[in-house]
Amino acid sequence: MHDRTFTFMGGEVGAWDVTDMATIVGESLPSVPHVEFLRGVESASDSRSWVLRGVTSNQRYVTRAEQEELVAIQPTLGRAESTRAALIPIRKTDEWWRLSQDERRQIFEEQSRHIVTGMRYLPAIARQLHHCRDLGEPFDFLTWFEYEPEHQAAFDELVHALRATEEWTYVDREIDIRLTRGSARS
Amino acid sequence: MHDRTFTFMGGEVGAWDVTDMATIVGESLPSVPHVEFLRGVESASDSRSWVLRGVTSNQRYVTRAEQEELVAIQPTLGRAESTRAALIPIRKTDEWWRLSQDERRQIFEEQSRHIVTGMRYLPAIARQLHHCRDLGEPFDFLTWFEYEPEHQAAFDELVHALRATEEWTYVDREIDIRLTRGSARS
Repeated sequence: MHDRTFTFMGGEVGAWDVTDMATIVGESLPSVPHVEFLRGVESASDSRSWVLRGVTSNQRYVTRAEQEELVAIQPTLGRAESTRAALIPIRKTDEWWRLSQDERRQIFEEQSRHIVTGMRYLPAIARQLHHCRDLGEPFDFLTWFEYEPEHQAAFDELVHALRATEEWTYVDREIDIRLTRGSARS
Repeated sequence: MHDRTFTFMGGEVGAWDVTDMATIVGESLPSVPHVEFLRGVESASDSRSWVLRGVTSNQRYVTRAEQEELVAIQPTLGRAESTRAALIPIRKTDEWWRLSQDERRQIFEEQSRHIVTGMRYLPAIARQLHHCRDLGEPFDFLTWFEYEPEHQAAFDELVHALRATEEWTYVDREIDIRLTRGSARS
């Protein structure tokens, strides 16, 4: 694998403490006390209850104008003050994947305003999207968010807004894992 | 991996005999006498000089109207009379992958007429596209074509037409491997 691969591991150890884990739709994931998030491929081990992998990749829907707006305001991961995070693995239905590119874009942005909605929460909420459908993983995407504790309500609002969209009617598995950076860890 | 994964192996054995192997641009692949093409993941072995993997996936540029036209006329792989094939692994530049979705679509179809050009050779030439950029493979795509011997000239014409496009200025590695179904094999 290449340097765009990231591994998320749930288990007994990890830099992030799980504060809440909710199955929004579909099959759940085993509950875990900690999550680790690493660049590269990491193997499963006894201390890991589950291991999920994804790769950062090229944009699939964003136009040039949207991309420029995003680049201008989106923050990087790893800000010291961003002690809250969320890992939200998502799978979409076969029906979604059978849609043509223009139909998916139409639902994603023209109807569901996914890009515009997300942009309203920048730069407070840093995000990274990992693709995994073509890796044969159980989810299609691993979405990762980081923010300061004071932006918790804003993050909840963002997540609820997206779940109310037409796009989300094509989501058939979603787990919402909320995290706090472990205080005793680096 | 899942049932959308395909493995292409070049080496001493394989159902397809290599009749010609040309490096169009970029680093070459070792010359081999045979190519095997299998569904699923196959490991490297002594008799294999190279192993390439890709997955069939959702369409990235095709609109609903184009998709319907394609579905109506595109043939399946494995036609008994299609005794000629081509495996053309392709990599595109980082510049291509940094383009936004609308810019890539603009170059792919509005300027380069990739879909319309390919459609002119249907149903004579059966095709299957395998994606591998996100798998950490050395190529971004493994393109596979099957046709009858009488359509050899048409296939050459198609390949030359695509190589003359704006889209192909973003291709920085391409190997053209021509194949004949081995007569002594099933």
